[in-house]
Amino acid sequence: MQPVPVPALPQGYNFRRVGKEDFQDKNLFKTLSILTTVGDIPEPKFHALIDYWNDRKEIYNPMVITNAENVIIATGMLFVEHKLIHGGGKVGHVEDISVNPSEQGKKLGLIMIRNLIQIAQNEGCYKVILDCDEKNVKFYEKCGMKIEGVEMGYRF
Amino acid sequence: MQPVPVPALPQGYNFRRVGKEDFQDKNLFKTLSILTTVGDIPEPKFHALIDYWNDRKEIYNPMVITNAENVIIATGMLFVEHKLIHGGGKVGHVEDISVNPSEQGKKLGLIMIRNLIQIAQNEGCYKVILDCDEKNVKFYEKCGMKIEGVEMGYRF
Repeated sequence: MQPVPVPALPQGYNFRRVGKEDFQDKNLFKTLSILTTVGDIPEPKFHALIDYWNDRKEIYNPMVITNAENVIIATGMLFVEHKLIHGGGKVGHVEDISVNPSEQGKKLGLIMIRNLIQIAQNEGCYKVILDCDEKNVKFYEKCGMKIEGVEMGYRF
Repeated sequence: MQPVPVPALPQGYNFRRVGKEDFQDKNLFKTLSILTTVGDIPEPKFHALIDYWNDRKEIYNPMVITNAENVIIATGMLFVEHKLIHGGGKVGHVEDISVNPSEQGKKLGLIMIRNLIQIAQNEGCYKVILDCDEKNVKFYEKCGMKIEGVEMGYRF
């Protein structure tokens, strides 16, 4: 199988895993808050979540892109579900994609998605799925994805 | 918060977790094969997957409904994702819902979904989501769910 092509990041930009050190400057929270409500996360709770994710690295891949000033400006999560169907296959779920609007035009969304798809490929997933708003369908099609179905939700 | 109402199962029917003993009669595989390709799962691989799920019970809830003859006739998975957003909130993902057509008209699909939603509620999730074909939207609306977005996929 061909590896999924991942375009290069701009000079000085990095794609890396979230760490405990990302609490201090709050840029992770700021970037996620473009997407949705982040809420109040005290430092011990944040550290406990990073430990929880790190203890389950075969499932959770919480990733970010940092710019040349080492500021987090894009986020994305890939988590890997181990199924019985498809010969005991794995599916990668992409969640919580957010890119700071001040960094638009640098293909950071596309680069994030392609990197997450590449992680899923390396983990042996047979597919990657995500849910999005209707208005973002064209963007995900540019990333090489296709419409597969409808997302239904139940909120408590 | 009110608990999610779960209709009663027919007399003699049970809702329970998948176990290693479900390899022998193959009814789990038969029910899942209504939904999609199951493929070849040798017994040691099946047992390893059950161990994997059982070692991560806070994430994986692989559930079935059995009929009065103790035959698996419906399947459903709830897995629980621990997020940073929404105050470090949790989301329940429903997967691999299948009901044997010979048992239709007994609301087993509805009962499965409501049970999975109830597990998610007990785990403290702020929402439950799933992906489905357009043709199943009306069924999930009857389960109390609403259209939230579009599912996009990338297949290797």
